[in-house]
Amino acid sequence: MQRMARLRQVAFEKAKFDGYLVFNPSNQIYFTGVPGTSALLIPNDDEATIYVYSVNYEQARAEGKGFRVEQVKRGEDLMEKIARQAQELGTKNLGVDALGAESWRNLTKQTRGKTRLKLKPDFVTQLRAVKDEKEIALIRNACELASLGMKTAYEVLSSGLKEYEVAAEIEYAMRKHGSYGTAFDTAVSSGPASAFPHGGCTDRKIRSGELVVIDLGAVYKFYRSDMTRTLVVGKPSEKQQKIQAIVRKAQQKAFEALRQNVAAKDVDGAGRKVIEEAGYGENFVHGLGHGVGLDIHEPPTLNTVSKEKLQAGNVVTDEPGVYLVGYGGVRIEDTVLVTKAGAEKLTIGHYGLGKE
Amino acid sequence: MQRMARLRQVAFEKAKFDGYLVFNPSNQIYFTGVPGTSALLIPNDDEATIYVYSVNYEQARAEGKGFRVEQVKRGEDLMEKIARQAQELGTKNLGVDALGAESWRNLTKQTRGKTRLKLKPDFVTQLRAVKDEKEIALIRNACELASLGMKTAYEVLSSGLKEYEVAAEIEYAMRKHGSYGTAFDTAVSSGPASAFPHGGCTDRKIRSGELVVIDLGAVYKFYRSDMTRTLVVGKPSEKQQKIQAIVRKAQQKAFEALRQNVAAKDVDGAGRKVIEEAGYGENFVHGLGHGVGLDIHEPPTLNTVSKEKLQAGNVVTDEPGVYLVGYGGVRIEDTVLVTKAGAEKLTIGHYGLGKE
Repeated sequence: MQRMARLRQVAFEKAKFDGYLVFNPSNQIYFTGVPGTSALLIPNDDEATIYVYSVNYEQARAEGKGFRVEQVKRGEDLMEKIARQAQELGTKNLGVDALGAESWRNLTKQTRGKTRLKLKPDFVTQLRAVKDEKEIALIRNACELASLGMKTAYEVLSSGLKEYEVAAEIEYAMRKHGSYGTAFDTAVSSGPASAFPHGGCTDRKIRSGELVVIDLGAVYKFYRSDMTRTLVVGKPSEKQQKIQAIVRKAQQKAFEALRQNVAAKDVDGAGRKVIEEAGYGENFVHGLGHGVGLDIHEPPTLNTVSKEKLQAGNVVTDEPGVYLVGYGGVRIEDTVLVTKAGAEKLTIGHYGLGKE
Repeated sequence: MQRMARLRQVAFEKAKFDGYLVFNPSNQIYFTGVPGTSALLIPNDDEATIYVYSVNYEQARAEGKGFRVEQVKRGEDLMEKIARQAQELGTKNLGVDALGAESWRNLTKQTRGKTRLKLKPDFVTQLRAVKDEKEIALIRNACELASLGMKTAYEVLSSGLKEYEVAAEIEYAMRKHGSYGTAFDTAVSSGPASAFPHGGCTDRKIRSGELVVIDLGAVYKFYRSDMTRTLVVGKPSEKQQKIQAIVRKAQQKAFEALRQNVAAKDVDGAGRKVIEEAGYGENFVHGLGHGVGLDIHEPPTLNTVSKEKLQAGNVVTDEPGVYLVGYGGVRIEDTVLVTKAGAEKLTIGHYGLGKE
């Protein structure tokens, strides 16, 4: 309810809306905590309405305390119901967070002449970018589970194992300790695939001496974590050690730059500078990081064109990488909490190419 | 490439488009097999173009054989690039599968006066509804993994275990045998939560004598499976057995109704009739089933208002359920291949409330 109050400040006082309509599933969960709902209408001063199809209606009624729960029956038109409710509430200017082009047309048709619609996707995601204490506790838990998954990866990795067999052990360890599934598809990308930032996880057998990028995340009560390490079975080569050291230093420099009021672009720059100076600038083919929370990618974004300033309560990844096509890649990633004084790593453990 | 030829027949010969633009990620994978791409432009007679951001560019180049691969650099506008390419190709009427309202506006602006846009979301999903031999083989594999997961559930379920601990064992078994993650969040919904069709999976401890709905799916090379059973630890009550028998009979009747050229609505009706006649019509709060493939929910849909006729090569779920709020629920689900003569169950194994 505090979250809705904050939205009302932004959307109703600043943008002069008298209603805000939420379709993005994570945005809905942010306000209601109820999964499987189809829309949320937040009026200026009245009770908010959850719209939910019959299949999830009883669950929404049980879990959606403090909300009006409106059932959408088969054959009913969700947009028509929303338009009617907005009209009954006398809503004149309705902000909307996200909608497909076709549904937008339908909603425009249904509200025509009564309620003006305006797409304002950022209101809720900007609120979500600054986590409250409750959210930080959940993310902290998801990060502990990720660290445990990574510890398992270091323990089990050996040559001859298939990539997905390593993923099986990682996910089992996280799940057994309370992870609600995975934050995204666990990547165990060995050999040539390690040179692709999203190299995936296949039935390829891991060989001694090659780079293996492991990217994993856990989920705790809807909140996610994100962590990457790069490993080698057996003795790493000098070149592998050299690249690892560059990426590790870049990650550390970016971490040291993280604090509130710093431009996200400059944090990217602090890490990127290390890699550029080492001569691998062209091989760091993505941004330094992204926000993590209900979604695995959410604001703020840390890259060369970011316009945002970081705020205390942001939770972001710090994940530089060097990718050499045909050879292999190294990425090191932590999920980090931005604070007033600096930053705190929420994922922890090994950084090296092998068991330390 | 055969798939693009079929799209060209539908989109270019029947709908008079001279280009089709694909944004839906599963639709893109359907044609290219490459994950992580941002758009696919299929012209009338020229080579198709994959649009991909720098982070996944090298991977798309390596895996996107037979496609032009266009890199979208940071700061570049994807819609502007697409509009320019469409113009260079002389595309006059461009069909689009799916797009958010904001991106649609941008694309409309970029193409104005040169290329007419028309939203036609169904072209690709309708093609995808009829699986080819290669797809059926992959889904068959995903279904075998799901059956193995369910076998594990029957083996490990016992009172005192937390819901997520059961999920951990299920997912580990599927993953160890080659599943690429899970097709959706595994549900282990015990006691009161079993009365919700999407009852989830929490840290609740399973108790002897209560209903436990287990809904799981595996993934094999992008293709998914879907399977549900309902179990009881210890001896089921008469009421539990009665409801299980009704749902099982409904599932079987629907299965017997499945074959090509039958209306999807009538297959739903065949199952629903059994539950209605038993007096639980109000408690079957969802449709009988849905298509399964690259997405866990895709056409065709089998419910009371479906307009589609089934075709050989459809892969659908058959999943009636009875949900008694405050008591518990029973759902039984298989993934089924529709054939000319009837249907084939792709998920197999136990149907009863306990080990048989």
